[in-house]
Amino acid sequence: MSHAPSEALKRRHQAIRARLAADDLDALVVTSLPNILYLTNFTGSAAIAVLTADRLEVLTDSRYVTSIRALQRTTPGLELVTIDGSYDATLAIRLASPSLRRVGFEAAHLTVARHDWLTASLAGHTGQVSLVPTDGIVEQGRLCKDDYEIATLREAARRLSAVGTEVLTEVRAGRTEREMALAIDWRIRQGGFSRCAFDTIVAGGPNGALPHAQPGERRLTEGDLAVLDFGGVYDSYCVDLTRTVSIGRATGRARDVYGAVLDAHDRAIASVRPGASRLDIDGVARDALGRHGLAEAFGHGTGHGLGIEVHEDPRIVRRRKDIDTRDEYLAAGMVFTIEPGAYLPGWGGVRIEDDVLVTSDGVEVLTDVTTELLEI
Amino acid sequence: MSHAPSEALKRRHQAIRARLAADDLDALVVTSLPNILYLTNFTGSAAIAVLTADRLEVLTDSRYVTSIRALQRTTPGLELVTIDGSYDATLAIRLASPSLRRVGFEAAHLTVARHDWLTASLAGHTGQVSLVPTDGIVEQGRLCKDDYEIATLREAARRLSAVGTEVLTEVRAGRTEREMALAIDWRIRQGGFSRCAFDTIVAGGPNGALPHAQPGERRLTEGDLAVLDFGGVYDSYCVDLTRTVSIGRATGRARDVYGAVLDAHDRAIASVRPGASRLDIDGVARDALGRHGLAEAFGHGTGHGLGIEVHEDPRIVRRRKDIDTRDEYLAAGMVFTIEPGAYLPGWGGVRIEDDVLVTSDGVEVLTDVTTELLEI
Repeated sequence: MSHAPSEALKRRHQAIRARLAADDLDALVVTSLPNILYLTNFTGSAAIAVLTADRLEVLTDSRYVTSIRALQRTTPGLELVTIDGSYDATLAIRLASPSLRRVGFEAAHLTVARHDWLTASLAGHTGQVSLVPTDGIVEQGRLCKDDYEIATLREAARRLSAVGTEVLTEVRAGRTEREMALAIDWRIRQGGFSRCAFDTIVAGGPNGALPHAQPGERRLTEGDLAVLDFGGVYDSYCVDLTRTVSIGRATGRARDVYGAVLDAHDRAIASVRPGASRLDIDGVARDALGRHGLAEAFGHGTGHGLGIEVHEDPRIVRRRKDIDTRDEYLAAGMVFTIEPGAYLPGWGGVRIEDDVLVTSDGVEVLTDVTTELLEI
Repeated sequence: MSHAPSEALKRRHQAIRARLAADDLDALVVTSLPNILYLTNFTGSAAIAVLTADRLEVLTDSRYVTSIRALQRTTPGLELVTIDGSYDATLAIRLASPSLRRVGFEAAHLTVARHDWLTASLAGHTGQVSLVPTDGIVEQGRLCKDDYEIATLREAARRLSAVGTEVLTEVRAGRTEREMALAIDWRIRQGGFSRCAFDTIVAGGPNGALPHAQPGERRLTEGDLAVLDFGGVYDSYCVDLTRTVSIGRATGRARDVYGAVLDAHDRAIASVRPGASRLDIDGVARDALGRHGLAEAFGHGTGHGLGIEVHEDPRIVRRRKDIDTRDEYLAAGMVFTIEPGAYLPGWGGVRIEDDVLVTSDGVEVLTDVTTELLEI
């Protein structure tokens, strides 16, 4: 397993510290595990990080002490605080320090219950710390991938493409969705991924009309379209791929719907470049499907960011009144999926998904599996 | 896939509604997905449920409309609200109703950011609703499993035991931890589980000293103890099993440590019965290890509840000042792990884990795999 190098971590810490200084914060309490991983390379299931202008503490329990000690060799300034009891009680003690006044917390990653407990606990200490909600400070850093992350995602996408190409040779009539999903998951793990990025979807025939179908006992049948959607986590980074294939000869309608989705997919990818609006990219895909009479058949967004999480920013979604328009414009280093689909209840569905990187002057498609409609 | 029957769901709803009435709440907003599953059988990845005295609405997006329609056949009173845009904006509109004054939310499952947004949004509506933090209302129902849940967990444990027995025949010197983990995960899926309940642990030799080791490229070697810890999700319910085996002849020290952990395991299980304190059960395991001079080597708790989540209440943990002592006493229907361990840095570790059910007069061990120290 490889890790972000010291230099990358140092730059990440510097970026956060600049934000803390700008926002007059003495510290940031990081409770999101993906954010902690981004700052420290820590991959365990429980920790809190506290970043100040000159320190980076990770609070974790005895299960992870050895891991943290190993990370200390590469993560600049990493200090370990071993929890023996309650995480939040230990955090409160660390925060009740005369050197801390304004302490930021991640409002999107701290529950009301924990926040209220911490506030009450800090009121009982002698310090004068106040908890200040912050919004996406670390996520802002994660939005554009650095060189290490791009190299990791490129390798992950290369491996997932190899898995995808092999998987397509294994599809055949008579296999159940569950069997196919299991075969895919096996190949993902054999391909060097530490785990699947999400529950693999294999949806044949009418089940393809459910974008998030769970693989069941239905057997793939001559005349089905089968949607295969799977992803893997490689060195902590997520990639995601979907192909739709025909079991036997494709019907005329299947060819039409497939062609429309592929058109939307190709046009959306062709419109990716720095400075383009992510909402407009969604519009390109949606308009293409609309021209084929399939506007109503495409209910979800066109794509989602990939990185330490399988669904992160940027969101390639429909422009609408109540949508968050922050970071609307794409920038080099962003990595996300393009995955238009068409879902026709009772009949089936098509989805075609690739992973793309915004480059300095356009787009690099990271995944590489044929998008021809295969008849298997 | 089977589902909780209508009658069970009805009883669950009644229990929550009784709590709402007692707490003078007009509604409960349920944002925890495991809690939503408990109330509705919904297994998707995004939803909000709103339960009132006479209604049960699930807010979800187009991906899950078909699933909800299917659930409406068995889930009493289930109503669908299709989200087209923002979940919380739709929720705010539903809550801004003249019939609602005090609306409970799950303080442990709503972030500060979402809570603050909802509060601000509701202030802009004409209704007079106020958001009231609640603590574990649905979890209280989940603490003691009902007949459907017990039957499901029993079947899941039976299947995981079969997987475990087979897995033990596959351990051998020369295989890497990663290969062994992959073999285990394959068997879990073949055994009818929809997924692994957590990342499988295979930790050989010195790696066994890390309770949460990640399987790596180290090969199992003559003289190692190897810790195998794995779990599966069957019909949405989680089970969890650990065995430790010796690669080749076990050393005297390995036998001693293994014997001590097994003694702790057996004594802890023997002390499980309705009315016993879960903190005392931990004490029984801890004292047993202490008598073998291994008190310091046992850093984690003795067990955790199993159900829709792989880590839930009741927690079988050490009695200490800052521990939550609610529901300290065991009751019939509780299901949890007993998994003492001993971890000796540089040398290795031992953990032995089974899943138990508190019965009306004692304990039923749900998992069934030999606890003899196998030399493989």
